[in-house]
Amino acid sequence: MTQIYDRVALIGLGLIASSMFWAIKRAGLAGEVTGYARSEATRETARRIGLCDRVCDTAQEAVEDADLVVLCVPVGAMGAVAEDIAPVLKPGATVSDVGSVKRHVIKAVSPHIPDGVHFIPAHPLAGTEHSGPEAGFAELFDNRWCLLVPVEGSDIDAIAQLRTFWEGMGSNVDEMDADHHDLVLAVTSHAPHLIAYTMVGVADDLRRVTDTEVIKYSAAGFRDFTRIAASDPTMWRDVFLTNKDATLEILGRFTEELFALQRAIRTGDGEQLFDYFTRTRAIRRGIIDAGQDTDAPDFGRGKTST
Amino acid sequence: MTQIYDRVALIGLGLIASSMFWAIKRAGLAGEVTGYARSEATRETARRIGLCDRVCDTAQEAVEDADLVVLCVPVGAMGAVAEDIAPVLKPGATVSDVGSVKRHVIKAVSPHIPDGVHFIPAHPLAGTEHSGPEAGFAELFDNRWCLLVPVEGSDIDAIAQLRTFWEGMGSNVDEMDADHHDLVLAVTSHAPHLIAYTMVGVADDLRRVTDTEVIKYSAAGFRDFTRIAASDPTMWRDVFLTNKDATLEILGRFTEELFALQRAIRTGDGEQLFDYFTRTRAIRRGIIDAGQDTDAPDFGRGKTST
Repeated sequence: MTQIYDRVALIGLGLIASSMFWAIKRAGLAGEVTGYARSEATRETARRIGLCDRVCDTAQEAVEDADLVVLCVPVGAMGAVAEDIAPVLKPGATVSDVGSVKRHVIKAVSPHIPDGVHFIPAHPLAGTEHSGPEAGFAELFDNRWCLLVPVEGSDIDAIAQLRTFWEGMGSNVDEMDADHHDLVLAVTSHAPHLIAYTMVGVADDLRRVTDTEVIKYSAAGFRDFTRIAASDPTMWRDVFLTNKDATLEILGRFTEELFALQRAIRTGDGEQLFDYFTRTRAIRRGIIDAGQDTDAPDFGRGKTST
Repeated sequence: MTQIYDRVALIGLGLIASSMFWAIKRAGLAGEVTGYARSEATRETARRIGLCDRVCDTAQEAVEDADLVVLCVPVGAMGAVAEDIAPVLKPGATVSDVGSVKRHVIKAVSPHIPDGVHFIPAHPLAGTEHSGPEAGFAELFDNRWCLLVPVEGSDIDAIAQLRTFWEGMGSNVDEMDADHHDLVLAVTSHAPHLIAYTMVGVADDLRRVTDTEVIKYSAAGFRDFTRIAASDPTMWRDVFLTNKDATLEILGRFTEELFALQRAIRTGDGEQLFDYFTRTRAIRRGIIDAGQDTDAPDFGRGKTST
């Protein structure tokens, strides 16, 4: 793999940025990778584990002379970071991000991008329930999709270069417009996360079933929900606040459908339930055939022991 | 491990029964294991793969002279099977089951149990999204919980024997009364399954997002839902129809809570969202500490490739 950028700056050093660093190194995609995190503790951790070639104490220092700057902070913090680094961005550089919501990021970041700097929003569809600088690993993006969301007037060559960079980190790359991105993600990610958070909250709240029981007997299905409900709270708060319309639309559809199934249960309509449950199996098959999940029973979970 | 029963009969040869057979053999818990399935194709498959020492063409033949009979059919079919085998049950034998709902099974099966035969309902909290006679494996119950739900007047020695049998298959064993069982399972299993089915159904139904997109971009969270929404439709139809009250109660609480979070999104109440998402992380930690799930990122999913 050849070097794609001379210098890459990662702003924010959580799960995604740390995985990017290891994936960049694995493939030799950059000459130097600088990093910055707002928290001193995070910067110290990064220095200790060798995350980034150089960890800087300010975002401006990290960005200086960078050919690619990737904003890896929660969606709600993107605007302020862009404003901070704008004065030192190198002419001809590309600014990108990894936020889960695109319309809001474009609105918050675009006004700060100087003439002569390319802004190409992006979103790698990959993650785990772990967060922080030590959670990253080089394989996170392998065979996962990264969506590029070019804005009006994005430079063709700069887009092509960013695409090659993500492919070098193992991703498949697609392009999409911001509104469609936000709707697709509301379906495949934002609504499911809110639903999982809700179900886990309900279980925690019930007085007639103890937390100990919920925990002991979780293998019956519930534990799959707890994984996604363990994701980073700050990130997810920002996602819901900034992709409000699409998320509420999908949750509205979800509630409608849930009411229909509850009615089928109440009236004892077994046929409706059976047909519904049969249809949903096909989607699972599609996901496995597309290489987006494992067919091993129970996700091939390692055997757990006490 | 010593032999616990001379002869065990498994009625119904799906994921649970086939896993039981392999777990029984692994530990040498029975002298002979007979099996019966209503479908001729299933019986043929069982004979081909060596599932059960003897596959019988009628349930009565399988049950004859058995010391333990385990009903492994969908909850809705338990009553009819019990009625069918009642005349040939050996005095002193134990009848048990593996149904996900207990109050209904007790109501349907108890009337058919002859005097001198012990009826001890049970429910192993284990499963995968796969079903059928070829889905079973000996390790399914290892370190999972099996709940025994003794009925009025259950024989102490017969209960102790069944407990030892399940422990021999790798399970931890608890006892619980039927109503509490059905409520606990509504929380940890039945409501989460209906919610997952619903979310997958909504994604499939939307006209503005294609199935291809849902499938390609599922790694962002959605695919965890599709696993449990791929479970056996007949089994789950019966669960919802027979644990109606507890399931509807939990779904009612879920909807209430979901509406509160939707309102927080609509009004931009980031603090409420953040606090809620922080609280749910603790439950996940409890499940991992209790050995009921892996801490490996993403369930330690094997790397998938196209």
